[in-house]
Amino acid sequence: MNGAESLVQTLVDSGVEVCFTNPGTSEMHFVAALDKVPGMRAILGLFEGAVTGAADGYGRMAEKPAATLLHLGPGLANGLANLHNARRASTPLVNIVGDHATYHAQYDAPLSSDIKGFAAPVSGWVHSSSHPKYVAADAARAVAAARQAPGQVATLILPADTAWLEADGPAPALPVAGPVPAGEKAVARAAGALKNGKKTVILIRGEALKEEGLHAAGRIAAKSGARLLCDTFTPRIQRGAGRVAIERLPYFAEQIEENLAGTEQMIIVGSKPPVSFFAYPGKASWLTPEGCDILMLAHAHEDGVGALAALAEAIGAPKEPAHVAPLEKPELPTGNLDSFTAGQIIGHYLPEGAIVSDEAATSGIGPAIYTANAAPHDHLSLTGGSIGQGLPVATGAAVACPDRKVVCLHGDGGAMYTLQTLWSQAREGLDVTTVIFANRSYAILNVELMRVGAENPGPKALSMLDLHNPELDWVKLAQGMGVEAMRAETAEEFADQFSRCMRTKGPHLIEAVV
Amino acid sequence: MNGAESLVQTLVDSGVEVCFTNPGTSEMHFVAALDKVPGMRAILGLFEGAVTGAADGYGRMAEKPAATLLHLGPGLANGLANLHNARRASTPLVNIVGDHATYHAQYDAPLSSDIKGFAAPVSGWVHSSSHPKYVAADAARAVAAARQAPGQVATLILPADTAWLEADGPAPALPVAGPVPAGEKAVARAAGALKNGKKTVILIRGEALKEEGLHAAGRIAAKSGARLLCDTFTPRIQRGAGRVAIERLPYFAEQIEENLAGTEQMIIVGSKPPVSFFAYPGKASWLTPEGCDILMLAHAHEDGVGALAALAEAIGAPKEPAHVAPLEKPELPTGNLDSFTAGQIIGHYLPEGAIVSDEAATSGIGPAIYTANAAPHDHLSLTGGSIGQGLPVATGAAVACPDRKVVCLHGDGGAMYTLQTLWSQAREGLDVTTVIFANRSYAILNVELMRVGAENPGPKALSMLDLHNPELDWVKLAQGMGVEAMRAETAEEFADQFSRCMRTKGPHLIEAVV
Repeated sequence: MNGAESLVQTLVDSGVEVCFTNPGTSEMHFVAALDKVPGMRAILGLFEGAVTGAADGYGRMAEKPAATLLHLGPGLANGLANLHNARRASTPLVNIVGDHATYHAQYDAPLSSDIKGFAAPVSGWVHSSSHPKYVAADAARAVAAARQAPGQVATLILPADTAWLEADGPAPALPVAGPVPAGEKAVARAAGALKNGKKTVILIRGEALKEEGLHAAGRIAAKSGARLLCDTFTPRIQRGAGRVAIERLPYFAEQIEENLAGTEQMIIVGSKPPVSFFAYPGKASWLTPEGCDILMLAHAHEDGVGALAALAEAIGAPKEPAHVAPLEKPELPTGNLDSFTAGQIIGHYLPEGAIVSDEAATSGIGPAIYTANAAPHDHLSLTGGSIGQGLPVATGAAVACPDRKVVCLHGDGGAMYTLQTLWSQAREGLDVTTVIFANRSYAILNVELMRVGAENPGPKALSMLDLHNPELDWVKLAQGMGVEAMRAETAEEFADQFSRCMRTKGPHLIEAVV
Repeated sequence: MNGAESLVQTLVDSGVEVCFTNPGTSEMHFVAALDKVPGMRAILGLFEGAVTGAADGYGRMAEKPAATLLHLGPGLANGLANLHNARRASTPLVNIVGDHATYHAQYDAPLSSDIKGFAAPVSGWVHSSSHPKYVAADAARAVAAARQAPGQVATLILPADTAWLEADGPAPALPVAGPVPAGEKAVARAAGALKNGKKTVILIRGEALKEEGLHAAGRIAAKSGARLLCDTFTPRIQRGAGRVAIERLPYFAEQIEENLAGTEQMIIVGSKPPVSFFAYPGKASWLTPEGCDILMLAHAHEDGVGALAALAEAIGAPKEPAHVAPLEKPELPTGNLDSFTAGQIIGHYLPEGAIVSDEAATSGIGPAIYTANAAPHDHLSLTGGSIGQGLPVATGAAVACPDRKVVCLHGDGGAMYTLQTLWSQAREGLDVTTVIFANRSYAILNVELMRVGAENPGPKALSMLDLHNPELDWVKLAQGMGVEAMRAETAEEFADQFSRCMRTKGPHLIEAVV
């Protein structure tokens, strides 16, 4: 058994069942090992951003890491933007990055680069194996690092000779450092605070945004009247009919300030006090109201679900939570297609258990409103602000949950960064329906250009935000990668197409001209 | 004048006339400055790899830097792979990377990351401006750093507030540290060596691969009988009829060993002793024959052209060089279309002064053979091994040389990494003809899988190298981005299409099914 085989076997033994790949020469022994070691599904991506983003989507839904297989420094580099998003999502993820053979490094061959340097900014753990007999143990450590609560990116660099030389066999899986209980003092402090009559917000992120945590939060709200909030961008939230609905913080700094105005104390579960996404001249960056107390109920690596449940008990909350969303499917609109009528149609037809990968950006408001009382679903958002995450995250989610419908809502500008993902959806026959909101623009930047105070933009500036010349044809782009595609220009067309996609398995793309 | 305006004005004053952009919110003041400061052409790319690769192609042909405009760490990250290639090409290039406002950094907002960490592995110079009044001076230093011989990547990080706050105006251009003369001793040593009767190779890279340097090398060969060689992958070489033809080192280690067998001394101009591109079990990495003397005539930062001219004089070389390529246009083939018949057709129709951006990989051998005696042209190759360079390099070359026909030869696998580039070609109406060699495979990896000793590959391994399922439709992909496209399945079809593209201005794509 060579180093590569010991690596693949160790990954499988540690619970890693899927590897998203874009290999090159230095990874050929890993590729060969895929047939020699059973249990690892390998999914090829045609660009590394599609690979790392898919691993992110997989990790969010499977709640355990997928591996990636990347080709030296530049291959990793192409995957970094979506690894940045994965880092911000606290997604468990193991990168395997091939490298030149240890003895070849000295020659500075053309593909040599500082792989550790590329990896460090996105990785919680980085290591380069230095001997074939260390590879298996290093792999076990990488998986354990990735799974350390709340989850992180672990990057294992694999020099080619450590893959091809003889090894000692696989290493056993290591224990996982899961979430630790939140401190009793923190629970007691929060319980006390909820009785002081102050205007309270509970800001939640992470595992606690799934059904069980939301239920506990809803009970606390029922007793205390505290507002329940989540961040603007959350890795994953369970929402829709039957779930406790919580408010999402708006995007712009001044909207957040208005939203939080009057808040006297903020209890935080797995998140951080809200700050502005960008700085703007004359606007605040720190958005917690002055004088508002901040209470950490549970840090990101702590058990937020347990902390909320304990808090509910501590304040004598009722069994029934507040804010349970009723099922209210939106009416089907007719006529004009825009992101709001599209949102109504999506909310109407969204099937129970759907997974929504949302990078709709400015077109996302309508769908967010009209799916709030739709059938229960999971919602995955763009966590790190690096656009081009939505398509691959949808892909990975579909791999993790083959029996659930995945709906990807995407702006046209952002979708161009990782459009190669569609090919992997076609190859794997994944059940993903992609809706491209084609407004032919980096629409958010038209807003931002004004907000940063760049007055009277000229034609050059405006052309940097405009995607009209030429117009992208998403039907052709998708068909060019083997995905069935259609274009909708009216609400009726969109409703017909979207409902058909919800009834039919496999990858589809709808270009919604809005 | 704010910091962004002082920056753009300084870039223009320092000779930077083109900026390839993919901006976001933190770069909006730079974008606004494009209209306030005359003289900067801004070209939008829909993905940062397209942006940095275009700046590489521009720099290779314009022999001065273009700027890029990138959005924080993840935007830079998406451009790193082609910056790696630019680093290996010693291309002068200035990255402007927007960052959060200086006072916003402390809040670790979602898009925060270690930008310097991302930049360092690809940059010869990295700096983050800390005050609006420093920005102009920092920009002048960045351009001077980029132009330092032989050329390098310089990365200037621009916090948003240093862009929007008041500055003092532009900074004057700084003197450029161009190539220094090669040492007289090195010339004398090489001249002496050429008289010792040993079997000699002269290995050339950089500026000396243009007409003047080649002419001097050809004179040296005429007198001494030394073989003239260049690296397998060179940033730029001038070749074709009327130029001194030199041999290109083959790709695989054992081929290079065979090629160099018996060589007793190697005189190097601007390059390094050849090493294997990858390491392989049981094969050599260092490829200079044992006992062969290595003489550095000129380092990369030295004047290789002058050194070759001085060496020619020192040995009393004749005025007429050896190895001048005659004009021999290949016959037009009929019937089967493969990379060799396609190469004949390309060699037949290639117009004088064409620029060939070559990432044809395994399909590149035919075109290389059949353009050797074609009309004189420039040839740009993949310097750093990170695939996805050819399309953007062609784009940048077309911007630098609007009166010359650019021909991009590309493998289908590699072209997928930066296909977004086609949209910029359409928007700018660039005169680029792209030939996609569609073999539906990472063909080189099928070879490499065997070479690394991964015997009897199984179906999973083989599927990682195969692009048949589904087949990419490059005609639709190109049309989806506004580029006129066609498919050729016979030599006649390809000849008809390619010749038409050579006669017609503007972007075209031919999917050559080989």
